[in-house]
Amino acid sequence: MAKAPVLTPRADDFPRWYQELITKAELADNGPVRGTMVVRPYGYGLWERMQQEMDARIKEAGARNAYFPLLIPQSYLTKEAEHVEGFAPELAVVTHAGGKELEEPVVVRPTSETIVNDSFSRWVQSHRDLPLLINQWANVVRWELRPRVFLRTTEFLWQEGHTAHATYEDARDYAAHIHRNVYADFMENVLAMDAVPGRKTARERFAGAVNTLTLEGMMGDGKALQLATSHELGQNFAKAFGTRFLTREGRQEYVWQTSWGSTTRMVGALVMAHGDDDGLRVPPRLAAVQAVVVAIRDDEQVLAEVRRIGERLKAAGVRVHVDDRTDTPFGRRAVNWELKGVPVRIEVGPRDLENGTAVLVRRAGGSKEPTAIEALPVLLPEVLEAEQALLLKQSRARREERTAEVATVEEAVEAARTGWARIPWSALGPEGEAKLAERGVSVRCLVAADGSVPESDDQPGNVAVVARAY
Amino acid sequence: MAKAPVLTPRADDFPRWYQELITKAELADNGPVRGTMVVRPYGYGLWERMQQEMDARIKEAGARNAYFPLLIPQSYLTKEAEHVEGFAPELAVVTHAGGKELEEPVVVRPTSETIVNDSFSRWVQSHRDLPLLINQWANVVRWELRPRVFLRTTEFLWQEGHTAHATYEDARDYAAHIHRNVYADFMENVLAMDAVPGRKTARERFAGAVNTLTLEGMMGDGKALQLATSHELGQNFAKAFGTRFLTREGRQEYVWQTSWGSTTRMVGALVMAHGDDDGLRVPPRLAAVQAVVVAIRDDEQVLAEVRRIGERLKAAGVRVHVDDRTDTPFGRRAVNWELKGVPVRIEVGPRDLENGTAVLVRRAGGSKEPTAIEALPVLLPEVLEAEQALLLKQSRARREERTAEVATVEEAVEAARTGWARIPWSALGPEGEAKLAERGVSVRCLVAADGSVPESDDQPGNVAVVARAY
Repeated sequence: MAKAPVLTPRADDFPRWYQELITKAELADNGPVRGTMVVRPYGYGLWERMQQEMDARIKEAGARNAYFPLLIPQSYLTKEAEHVEGFAPELAVVTHAGGKELEEPVVVRPTSETIVNDSFSRWVQSHRDLPLLINQWANVVRWELRPRVFLRTTEFLWQEGHTAHATYEDARDYAAHIHRNVYADFMENVLAMDAVPGRKTARERFAGAVNTLTLEGMMGDGKALQLATSHELGQNFAKAFGTRFLTREGRQEYVWQTSWGSTTRMVGALVMAHGDDDGLRVPPRLAAVQAVVVAIRDDEQVLAEVRRIGERLKAAGVRVHVDDRTDTPFGRRAVNWELKGVPVRIEVGPRDLENGTAVLVRRAGGSKEPTAIEALPVLLPEVLEAEQALLLKQSRARREERTAEVATVEEAVEAARTGWARIPWSALGPEGEAKLAERGVSVRCLVAADGSVPESDDQPGNVAVVARAY
Repeated sequence: MAKAPVLTPRADDFPRWYQELITKAELADNGPVRGTMVVRPYGYGLWERMQQEMDARIKEAGARNAYFPLLIPQSYLTKEAEHVEGFAPELAVVTHAGGKELEEPVVVRPTSETIVNDSFSRWVQSHRDLPLLINQWANVVRWELRPRVFLRTTEFLWQEGHTAHATYEDARDYAAHIHRNVYADFMENVLAMDAVPGRKTARERFAGAVNTLTLEGMMGDGKALQLATSHELGQNFAKAFGTRFLTREGRQEYVWQTSWGSTTRMVGALVMAHGDDDGLRVPPRLAAVQAVVVAIRDDEQVLAEVRRIGERLKAAGVRVHVDDRTDTPFGRRAVNWELKGVPVRIEVGPRDLENGTAVLVRRAGGSKEPTAIEALPVLLPEVLEAEQALLLKQSRARREERTAEVATVEEAVEAARTGWARIPWSALGPEGEAKLAERGVSVRCLVAADGSVPESDDQPGNVAVVARAY
């Protein structure tokens, strides 16, 4: 008799599989206020590791962390016309505080462009203050009507970068630098996730931006997820807030700005891109626990051996956890580590000890092989890198297999039922984009003929990547 | 002619000195919503280093990070009677969201005991789930009528620990463990700040706690500042939220809980405890920049040398910054580094180079000595540790010098004009405490006769430490 599956198979019901995995792997719960979430320690551990890796890249790009207030005067939001239009429907508004009704309501930040510019307009005086490169790790609130944990939540955690530059070119280059050297590098080399870099169409741009760069990932069901975006804001916010500087030549000019963000949504992306019917698969470079050493049963020699292996792997630089909770049946623990997606499992039982071996189980590769215990400290780092590479390869292969080259809106809609479509932008255009939108399909991004990021929407040869999206 | 002081001297106007230092050292600005603050990169860098050091100690104590929602249903706050009474006057309330009036208003968290217990009541089922040890890094909002940057702000950043235990003793011991091994250890060994550990009186306890442990520091003006607190919550929140577990013996019992927190207030404490008339003095173990190598003027050899020194100090494990901005006058830069409190300054000019020396300036020690450049990589780590020790010693000496042993309320009020007073709790009692409160003086904590933390308010020999406080 086959054992009952732990999760609903992805092929049967992908959204249900997603929700079950989130719950059973103890990543997050729903919070009591609609659309909010409680990120549980295992889920938060993934986010913490993402933060560490991203923060190092952000600092390498020259930005410094700061913190701006959660509460923003409502009047600030209205200063940039497109911005307020984009965010007004999603705002949470504090009307009462300290036991009284407030004279002016304040909003809970949905993003910080406005309040950042309030500061920038004072901090920036001269060309010598530029570029000003700031990042913030924070929570934001956008009221969600159709929430889904990690993907669309009323409150989410993120980093938001905000920069001011003396010239258009410098701002443009910095937005591209972040897009490539922070976000794309992180997706590929840490998350092991294939991500297509491209340019958003006017319809899909951030509210207040003149250009938005994006990275789009294909999830396990063939839908697209926007992973991180980097915006050129032009002088829109600078003009709204009077953020000006004295040039070398003694003129007063408005600064050129960028903003860029990535969120806890990446945890949802991780689940949907790498998860399989047994649970999550965490890329080794991200994993807080890269290897778990499991005592199969309550035996003195076995327990001593798993602890010894743990020590030796730790000394070899592996982030290791020793599972000696033999009061829980081995099978249940094994299923649980599969669910949580720990990259490598080393199972040790009394019979293995006689042979000086342990069973090495690769979560992504799927193999289970008896392995000499003495070889583990040397072997493990190689195995982890191989698992990392395999996840990226699988993610890339899926996107390539499930992307169709098409020529018409009808073909694009058909392809988007199971994957992505690529269609010449000259054949689609804003009108075709509107028709796609009626069918629930969107242009995820424009890419140049050679795969690079186009410098304009209308650059000849541009291809639109279209899909259904989260 | 003596140069004009950069800051109002502390002796002339301490609050003004504090505000000027915060502004001129670029630590923080006031935000547009009353009582909020913008933490600027240099100030946030101090907080980031505090977070790193605290987080490592919290993890060492076995707690794991998680994240609970910012927005809490108003009804949750009312479930624990003392808790709601304590926090109701400070709440910020969201009444409108997503363009509509909400059916039930939600509050912006002032602290998370209630929403944490909502989760704990589901996560805890059996004695095997205990102890449950959780920490959160987050922002909280408490409406402030008399705000002062870092010290009392409407929004502040903090960590809040929340734990559940099977027995009273285990909870009590864990609260004490955090108090001693996380907070006291951090204050002494990282912040170099003298802090008196003690027990809060019933009057000063956290709203909903049965016992509050505190660390109290003396600031430069002799007033006290509460640095961090660790609470035993008993079963108060467990009963309000039904957080129960199945014991080994098969009974259903309520868990015993703790909560504990420390905030961005510690940045204010750092300023007021270590700052002098020239600015901040950052303890080397905390400093993101431990040493700055300053090129005195725009000279090719000098610039090459400061960069070389920077590389060598970095290789020696010193967190170093090279100041080669010779387009700003040297004097202004020197004043700025003093203001920012970088522990060690290494000044290099053309004449020094001829002798193979640089001028080594110690921020805390105050000395300026020509030093052989070749000796710096070996010397610097020793100098930094000496500066660290000096700050702690000065902080401790101030508290000892400015604390008076007194016997009456009148004497205590008199002593509190310039420092602290110690008075037997048996002579003061809750009635004397109420009289002190009328004069603006509070009992900061009770300490046992031998200097340890008392096990009860009425333990014989208890001494009350009283002071004016921030």
